[in-house]
Amino acid sequence: MIGDKLLHKIINSSIHQFLNASTMINIHHLTNSRSQRVIWLLEELNLEYTIIFHDRNTKTRQAAESLYQVHTLGKAPVLIDKTVTLAETGAIFDYVLETYDKDNLVPSTDNLARVNYLYWKNFSEASLMPYLAMTKLFARIAQGTPFILRPIATTVIKKINAEYLHMNLAIEANLIEQHLSTHKWFAGDQFTAADILMGLCLMCLLVNLLRRPHIQIVASLWMK
Amino acid sequence: MIGDKLLHKIINSSIHQFLNASTMINIHHLTNSRSQRVIWLLEELNLEYTIIFHDRNTKTRQAAESLYQVHTLGKAPVLIDKTVTLAETGAIFDYVLETYDKDNLVPSTDNLARVNYLYWKNFSEASLMPYLAMTKLFARIAQGTPFILRPIATTVIKKINAEYLHMNLAIEANLIEQHLSTHKWFAGDQFTAADILMGLCLMCLLVNLLRRPHIQIVASLWMK
Repeated sequence: MIGDKLLHKIINSSIHQFLNASTMINIHHLTNSRSQRVIWLLEELNLEYTIIFHDRNTKTRQAAESLYQVHTLGKAPVLIDKTVTLAETGAIFDYVLETYDKDNLVPSTDNLARVNYLYWKNFSEASLMPYLAMTKLFARIAQGTPFILRPIATTVIKKINAEYLHMNLAIEANLIEQHLSTHKWFAGDQFTAADILMGLCLMCLLVNLLRRPHIQIVASLWMK
Repeated sequence: MIGDKLLHKIINSSIHQFLNASTMINIHHLTNSRSQRVIWLLEELNLEYTIIFHDRNTKTRQAAESLYQVHTLGKAPVLIDKTVTLAETGAIFDYVLETYDKDNLVPSTDNLARVNYLYWKNFSEASLMPYLAMTKLFARIAQGTPFILRPIATTVIKKINAEYLHMNLAIEANLIEQHLSTHKWFAGDQFTAADILMGLCLMCLLVNLLRRPHIQIVASLWMK
């Protein structure tokens, strides 16, 4: 799904971003971040948008100063839509879906799939993504530690991983696997916005070698 | 607000939990966890509910086996309402508010306060709570490390705190402080469910000595 069409739009957006940045939805996007999911959501809803790219500081890996000018936290994505400026992926999803979705990507409130939708939408951001982000951070800390101290840092981080991080990630991967073995999509029979949120997480789980058959099948759909 | 009324209800619930556990909303609550916010939400909505208590394993600090029988992850809170079993605080809030709120605790969609509400509701669970949980975890890891290795573990954790965790928490505390200095509540003029979600976080910020004048004022309302 993040295929030719999106690539074309990204290149196109890059060229036009300064020409029409105020006429449509603007997405401030940080390189190598989870903000690609909002772009995917806008694609699914066939909305017009412009992407404004921000790089990371090569040393600190924090966002470049330009992103701090858009939002105090320097975090991406940030959506700007007319008078609304909104950060936080989950909040942007809620806003965009309330404003522009025609009941296609969110199950209606009288639908049992709604409960699944609410669970996985919130689980993605509050329970899974923080562990994935921590895993990445710890790997970076170990690498960034001076050579002579690196074995010590690695030992402590291994202990944290074994007793907490990897253990919790494995339990969560099992839960996801169990769910996907009896549901086609996260909410049930239909593709919903929860699948967009969870999609990136599944790819990250594969990177962390937490391979499970159904996770692999669903993740492969995102990698096409 | 978590005062006499709630204390009375907790004691009362404890007595009656096995008598009427199937007749109303049941909340599975884990000692010393963030699940108290769901109880607070149910109080605000004047809903009848029963609390089922679960302790932590004194060594691992994970939930007791009884909670794993309710939900695979062994995490609390878990809400059971008729045929619905739902974990994840953010999801439970979404579900309870959609099902039982009479537009009192959530600003309507045509209200600018709605955007603030969506932001802080999601921020609480996805951006702030994970950092607070990590801070607590690291302190526990340092304490739990054998005496001879503790200085090494403490050095590594201090580095992670300085370069990442405390830095991000301080930035987030500043953002919250800035917002509360110009808004009475998180969404604006009215108390909303976002204030319940953020309330516990503010108290945790105070515990972490991230004191700011307006955070202190608002947090004190929760501690009454």
